[in-house]
Amino acid sequence: MADNIIDPFGTSVVEDYSRLFSELGLKPITKELLERIRRPNLYLRRGIDFAHRDFDKFLAAAEAKKPIAIMSGIKPSNEFHLGSKMTAEKLIFFQKEFKAKVFYCIADLETLVDNQIPLETSHQIAVNNVADVLALGLNPKRAFIYKQSAEKRVTNMAYLFSRKITLNHLQSLYGERPLGLYFAAFAQCGDILLPQLKEFGGPKNVLVPIGVDQDSHMRLARDVVDRVKEQFAFIPPSSIYHKFFRALDGEAKMSKRNPMSVLLLNDTPELAEKKIKCCVDGGRKTAEEQRRIGGEAEKCVNYELAKFHFADDDKVLKKIYDECYGGKRLCGECKAEVAKMAVKFLKKHQQKKAKMVKTAEKILSD
Amino acid sequence: MADNIIDPFGTSVVEDYSRLFSELGLKPITKELLERIRRPNLYLRRGIDFAHRDFDKFLAAAEAKKPIAIMSGIKPSNEFHLGSKMTAEKLIFFQKEFKAKVFYCIADLETLVDNQIPLETSHQIAVNNVADVLALGLNPKRAFIYKQSAEKRVTNMAYLFSRKITLNHLQSLYGERPLGLYFAAFAQCGDILLPQLKEFGGPKNVLVPIGVDQDSHMRLARDVVDRVKEQFAFIPPSSIYHKFFRALDGEAKMSKRNPMSVLLLNDTPELAEKKIKCCVDGGRKTAEEQRRIGGEAEKCVNYELAKFHFADDDKVLKKIYDECYGGKRLCGECKAEVAKMAVKFLKKHQQKKAKMVKTAEKILSD
Repeated sequence: MADNIIDPFGTSVVEDYSRLFSELGLKPITKELLERIRRPNLYLRRGIDFAHRDFDKFLAAAEAKKPIAIMSGIKPSNEFHLGSKMTAEKLIFFQKEFKAKVFYCIADLETLVDNQIPLETSHQIAVNNVADVLALGLNPKRAFIYKQSAEKRVTNMAYLFSRKITLNHLQSLYGERPLGLYFAAFAQCGDILLPQLKEFGGPKNVLVPIGVDQDSHMRLARDVVDRVKEQFAFIPPSSIYHKFFRALDGEAKMSKRNPMSVLLLNDTPELAEKKIKCCVDGGRKTAEEQRRIGGEAEKCVNYELAKFHFADDDKVLKKIYDECYGGKRLCGECKAEVAKMAVKFLKKHQQKKAKMVKTAEKILSD
Repeated sequence: MADNIIDPFGTSVVEDYSRLFSELGLKPITKELLERIRRPNLYLRRGIDFAHRDFDKFLAAAEAKKPIAIMSGIKPSNEFHLGSKMTAEKLIFFQKEFKAKVFYCIADLETLVDNQIPLETSHQIAVNNVADVLALGLNPKRAFIYKQSAEKRVTNMAYLFSRKITLNHLQSLYGERPLGLYFAAFAQCGDILLPQLKEFGGPKNVLVPIGVDQDSHMRLARDVVDRVKEQFAFIPPSSIYHKFFRALDGEAKMSKRNPMSVLLLNDTPELAEKKIKCCVDGGRKTAEEQRRIGGEAEKCVNYELAKFHFADDDKVLKKIYDECYGGKRLCGECKAEVAKMAVKFLKKHQQKKAKMVKTAEKILSD
């Protein structure tokens, strides 16, 4: 994996996001692009969504009232954490913003090969995950939510694509992997291209809002589009990438693989508060020093919690930032404030989610 | 492919079948085994079915009235030829002989990756193939006939298995292949193990009657059984292998890849007669020489047509053999006799088949 700067199957830390533009050919989210979005969400406003492939083409299609769709998915291997929340909220934002149909894939075949979780087990996790997405605001009436294991169009496409791409090609995109993960990658391609099948209205511009660690799947899907062009008039899918939300210990991207440093959406308010109060911050050695030279919000996971998740109001976020650097707030009180916002969110979310479990069961039983 | 003495994806010629016993670990079909079968068909009586894996265990299970099943399949890439007829007739024979349920797989995902035939096209070929199998005598009431592309249990198992077997392992079984063929091999494993899923009554002895060129799939399936033993109590599948029926030009195994030397089950009687009259025979340079020293039935494709297909009565076959070596029959008259038998079979088969097309359509539309 030495040559792969991002890892779709692992936990990645990107030290320098600017490398991704030159090395992967990503384009930055510019002011001009942002101006074409009526009500940018906090990820767009705050530069968390920082890069894209063909997002401009997606916007042009939307503006011209051409057919569009939004596609994303989840690996049903664990409870929703703040990272999964971010992907889901982007999906929901674009569904509303463009009144677009959403394709939401439960990547249970990837969970089967990557995490070796049996399909019966991941089904239960998936019901739980879908209830989270619905509670976060996904409109199921304008969504096609499915499990890979139940969607033969996806698995059949995986077989077709597997003949069009060589092992060397996969190794260049993913590094040396167990065979099963390559197979899972072809299923992902099927997911990404599913919205363009004739049953769903044929070719269209599809936006895939994901973490930048998932870019290999986009590159593979775009290469596949080129390889199958004689059979399918697929339009290369567009993508928009967010930066990683760090783990609470500040070490790596927040990931389900390291549960102790992860805030889960089903954490009790008490546990969430405790986790936040223990997170890595940007404080100085002493209160005196901090009052004198200010804290370092840019290094602080607590500040990131506010920036990525809980302080939707830009004025509130700016206040935290300014008071931190100005030495006007200490970490203890700051964490208490963010924890309060988090607890408010979690309580409301957990109430909504409880009402969505039956709907989620019904969606995945069809 | 230099090291692989058989090739499940290509056209194979086996010069020396005895090598397969030592190199692949196959066991011979012995007299003792034959005596345990009440009414052996011509393939068993004539040594065409020559080798097996665990056929003795399958027989023991049948004798002990334990659960058993028969499994085989077809690649829907072309019309039935005499090779496909042989596999189908073995399946039908074992269905009747053991009153066993048959699992018949339409390997359309393999056709997609290997022959690059789209699923819509192979569906039509599959309907045609299934009509052939039904006309040959398969009892659909005691059969589960399905397409790989429509059977998600098969494709889901393929994902599970793909994580249990390494690329090196596959290369040792199949040689260097395009990635898609490896994935097709995992689907084949799913087909072979499908009868043992709990929906079909759980673990059982399954007999797979196939050409010896398909043995790699059996080895892979048996290796997979070992790798997934913590999750599934699969019994290693049994197999019984037939020798290849040569092409009419005597060159290789009869194969759909070389249509001009292949007798198809939908050939018109006139065309079939013409093909047989042009086939490679064991005749001498002149009629005088042949009457003096006899012909060579063992080298003659016309004799093989009688032996493998059209002379079910052992006395008739013996008469042809003896008269050939005794110089009492010349090739022209012998071919006319075999062609007459072939035409009789084809006419009857084609009449039966015409009545089966609707049933075949119905089976594959479910």
